[in-house]
Formats: sequence, C-alpha cells, structure tokens
Amino acid sequence: MDTRQIILAQRPKGMPTAETFLVRDISLPALTDEEVLLQTVYASVDPYMRGRMNDAKSYVPPYAVGAAITGGVVAKVVESRNTRFAVGDVVVGELPWQEYSISSGKGLLKLDPQSGDHTAALGVLGMTGLTAYVGLQEIGKPKAGETLVVSGAAGAVGSIVGQIGKILGCRVVGIAGTADKVRMLTEELGFDAAVNYKDADFSAKLKSACPSGVDVYFDNVGGDVTDAVFRLLNDFARIPVCGQIALYNQAGPDVGPRLFAYLVTRRALAQGFIVSDYAKQFSEARAKLAEWLAAGKLKHRETIVEGFDRLPDAFLGLFRGDNTGKLLVHVADV
Amino acid sequence: MDTRQIILAQRPKGMPTAETFLVRDISLPALTDEEVLLQTVYASVDPYMRGRMNDAKSYVPPYAVGAAITGGVVAKVVESRNTRFAVGDVVVGELPWQEYSISSGKGLLKLDPQSGDHTAALGVLGMTGLTAYVGLQEIGKPKAGETLVVSGAAGAVGSIVGQIGKILGCRVVGIAGTADKVRMLTEELGFDAAVNYKDADFSAKLKSACPSGVDVYFDNVGGDVTDAVFRLLNDFARIPVCGQIALYNQAGPDVGPRLFAYLVTRRALAQGFIVSDYAKQFSEARAKLAEWLAAGKLKHRETIVEGFDRLPDAFLGLFRGDNTGKLLVHVADV
Repeated sequence: MDTRQIILAQRPKGMPTAETFLVRDISLPALTDEEVLLQTVYASVDPYMRGRMNDAKSYVPPYAVGAAITGGVVAKVVESRNTRFAVGDVVVGELPWQEYSISSGKGLLKLDPQSGDHTAALGVLGMTGLTAYVGLQEIGKPKAGETLVVSGAAGAVGSIVGQIGKILGCRVVGIAGTADKVRMLTEELGFDAAVNYKDADFSAKLKSACPSGVDVYFDNVGGDVTDAVFRLLNDFARIPVCGQIALYNQAGPDVGPRLFAYLVTRRALAQGFIVSDYAKQFSEARAKLAEWLAAGKLKHRETIVEGFDRLPDAFLGLFRGDNTGKLLVHVADV
Repeated sequence: MDTRQIILAQRPKGMPTAETFLVRDISLPALTDEEVLLQTVYASVDPYMRGRMNDAKSYVPPYAVGAAITGGVVAKVVESRNTRFAVGDVVVGELPWQEYSISSGKGLLKLDPQSGDHTAALGVLGMTGLTAYVGLQEIGKPKAGETLVVSGAAGAVGSIVGQIGKILGCRVVGIAGTADKVRMLTEELGFDAAVNYKDADFSAKLKSACPSGVDVYFDNVGGDVTDAVFRLLNDFARIPVCGQIALYNQAGPDVGPRLFAYLVTRRALAQGFIVSDYAKQFSEARAKLAEWLAAGKLKHRETIVEGFDRLPDAFLGLFRGDNTGKLLVHVADV
C-alpha cells in the first residue's frame, strides 16, 4: 500500500524552513503477524519536537535525517493481524507522520469507543494535560491562596496548568502573546489576570497582576518573559521548567541576565522535567483531569489545521503563536 | 567603656572600597540586667555579607548605613549580669564588628570549655560547615558512585562539601582559582580531581575530570564557572545553589548564556537555599561533622588574618580569593 510520509530532510539551524521537511511517497509492505495497519486521523504537533530535530543530547533521541518525523497520533485500525486490535478501533500512540502506517501494536492505547472524543487523548487527557498536571503538582506544589504565573498560558500545556491552578485555589496569572489570547484566558478559562508579553509595559503590567509576588512559575517559554517573572519571585518559589520555546529556534547561544542569583536570594527551586518521568502518577492524573473535564471545571481549547500536507507548517505555527490550546492536524475522518 | 566599631559608611556599588567602611570609637553604656559584656576573639568574614550591603530584598535584612556590620563572632564574657553566662565563658553568636560589645545573651551559644577549639564554631561546626552539610544532603542528595563537582572548592563551604562527598562515596571534583588551592584539594583534602578556573583550557580540563558527567553540582560561584559545569550535567542532576560570589560585586546586571534550557533537557533541579531554613537538621549535622572531624575524615582549613583593623580588608580578600578554607580575623586572645 502506498502512503505519503514526511521526513526530516535536514537539521534546521534556528527556525525550521521549507527545506527542513520533505513529503515523499513510500510503499508499505504487507502486514506480518501481530501488526496493524493504521490510518492517521489526527497528528499532534508539539514544541518538544523542535529539540528532536537537533543532533543534541536531550531526553528523547534526535530524529534521524531521512527518516519520518514521529509524534503523538490518533489513528484508526484499517487492517489487523493483532488480536488486541480490531478493524475500526481508534488508537493513540507515537507514530510517524504518514497517512498510513504499520505498527506492532506496542505502545498503542485504544480510545474508549463510547466517548466520541478523538482529540482529548492527544491533549487534555494525553501528553500535554499530563504534563500540566504532574509538573504543577509534583514540582510547583501550589497551595491555595498562592500566586501561580504561567507562561505560554494559551498553549496546550499552559491553558491546563492555569485552570488546575484555579481549581486548587490559586491566584492565576497567564502570559500570552496576543490580545485575543489574553482575553480568552480571563474571559473563558477563568484566569484572574493575563498579560501580553508583547506589550511595551509588559513588566509593569505583570507586576500589577501579581500584587503578592509569585509563588509558582510554570515556565513554558524562557527568555525575556522568564526574566520578568524572576524579578517578582517570592521566597521559596517553585519553578517547574517545562519548556523554553523562546529559545528553541536560536541559531547560536542565547544570552540573558543570569538568573541563579535569584534562586539564592529567594531560596527558590527550578526543576526541568519531562512527563514520562512521572508515569506512576498518570492514572491518578488522568482520572482527575477527566473528572474536572466532565464537571465543566476544565475546558480544553484546540486549534485544528486541516490536511496532512500542512503538518510542517502547523508545527511552525507553534513558534508563531498561531495556536490557542492544543494544536492538531486533521488528516482523515474516523 | 570605649571600643572601636566598624560601620557600613556607604553602600558599595560593585566591589566595596575603603569608603565602604568606617572605623570609629564609641562608648558602651553600663550593663543592665541580663546583659553581658563581650570581648571579640575571632570575627568571621563571609561572602553572604556582601549581599547585606545592598539595599535589596534577600534572605537577611540589609545592613543599615551608619550602623555596625554584624556577623559570626566568637567572644569571651568579660562582665556578666546574666546568670547563664559567667566571666571567662567563650561564646559564639551574631555580633557587631566591635572589639567589645554588649549582648542580651539571646542567640549566644557557649563553646565547650574542654574542646580548646575556638574557631570550629565559626567554620566546620558552625555556619559554613552546616551550610555544606544541609545543602549537599538535602538538595544535592549524592549517591555513592556519582560525580560531585564543587565550585569555590577551596573555600569554607566548598572544602567541606567536597570532603563530605568523598565520605559518601562520590567522585569529587573541585574548582578553585590558584594552583596552590588545586594542589591542596587533591593532596590534602582527598578530592579526586581539581581544576583551576583561571586556566585557559579550564572547560576541557573540567570535562576530562568528569568522564561520567556531573550528577551533583554544588555551586558557590556562578558566572562562567557554572556555565562550564552546566554543559556536563547528567540527567536528573541536582544543583544546590549556595552562592554566586562571582556576581556579588557586579555593579550592573550580569549577562551570560541562558541555563534553563539545560534544566529541561537534563531534567535537572537547581535550588537556592540558606542554612537557617534547615535548622531542624542542625543537631544531626553537627554531630556528624564532629564525628568525622574527630575520626580525621574531615579536615578544616583556616586562613587567619591578624587584627581588628583588618576586618574590612579581610572581607575583601574573599573576593580576591585570598583564603583557603574558613577566613577569620583574630581580634584578641581568649
């Protein structure tokens, strides 16, 4: 069977371009025992994937040049030689950017056919929701009444972090990059305040939004935004460092104010993490997230881009700030 | 009674100078009930005091301009109206830079008259030793076989950190600023390796000294030294951030490579701390340190400067790297 595949054509320096990716046609072999043939329904694009395009030590191995990009994908089973999966099952897993792909079944999770929700497994109940939950709970350890600041607040992770903060009784302040996102955070997601980091008086606005300082800073962004938040840290502040999207496309070394002196004077903790380190917490986290979602306490926003071809550009949209909430590419109907 | 006193004459910008301090004569009033008259024997000079010279939010309130500098002092009781203290007792506490001072007795600890050691209470069994112990154990959490790197390794805190690391079974690599210090660390204190950060090929030497990367980085220094260590961090590295002496005398904001991306890719933890946050661990820590000291497993190095007048210059010596181990000023004999 023939399918289209998107490969890493060359490693980007700085921002990926049209030359970074290549769409090509490949032929899939016939299934062997235990294998399933999957048709991609939704593919997730996530900032961490930029790191995998570098040939550098990180928590996930780099993508190989010439091989398919892989990521979170929801797919339906169209042929099966695996007794665990029947034709028509909808599954989620780490799969290649292909319209069709073959899997051994390993690592695939079946979605509940009753729920009818085919995207939550990539977002609020998937990697990004779990990232928000474990990073905030295990490192941020927010207490009711504390001030939680979230950068990248309108993104897939940040939007969930802020809402969990509200559920836990925090004052929640979001940082985002457009007036629409700022409005969405306060008017739709219940944030106490939100600030646009592109405003000329961003630092002053952030300061007024945090009259009692900052106890937990969930950082998705890094760079100047983080510099501004650090000036407001309270004693014993906790900083889950989830991502540094502002820096991912820097071609050279980035410089900025040295922040470690703040850690000393505030006795603050900054910890990088990756969601898979907290796999033990996943079932509890998923149950909580599902409960809050069902109760209407948690809303999940999505930005859906249409069409397999648009995967590379959708990915680049993460760095342009195109998305509100989880950014997904719709490839085929279920 | 008349005494000399050293006050903060003006807040320094950048490196303190002769104008920062003023020695003046004052008269002490007669003792009232509960008070003791103390003669300073040894006064401790410590890097954290630089922070107190700024009018800035930190973990200890700033020194007031026009008032005496205070710090760790060993003193003998020369007059007492407090039943807890007899003339001849030797005590340690936070006291002003004066040849004589009056205390309410609050916060003073009596030294064991049997021990005959009048300086350990300011160093290995005092603030700096406890800082080393709690920072390493509570934040660094070193495991046998791991690599521990210590910056400011020849200083009062660093020299103890490295030796505790050896006792706990780590590979210990020290960073210091002279060839003599580097030699002392390996030849006298048992470090596995030591590197001079002033060497042109410092980064390369550090890398060869850490063939298995860095699991715990006890940071006293910050700046370029920390940048070099960060490139070697292993996954799940822990970084107790004890001080940033390289930055304390920066007149303006300091810039350097942004380090938080390393926290993400290595899932590393960096935490600032101050010893007094761990007061609950002090008795256990003091007992352990005393036991290791008695067993000869722990050596404490001291640099003693002679004479009350030299307190300001001794303090500045911390930033010139004059000291090996704990830096003290001898003011009077017991």
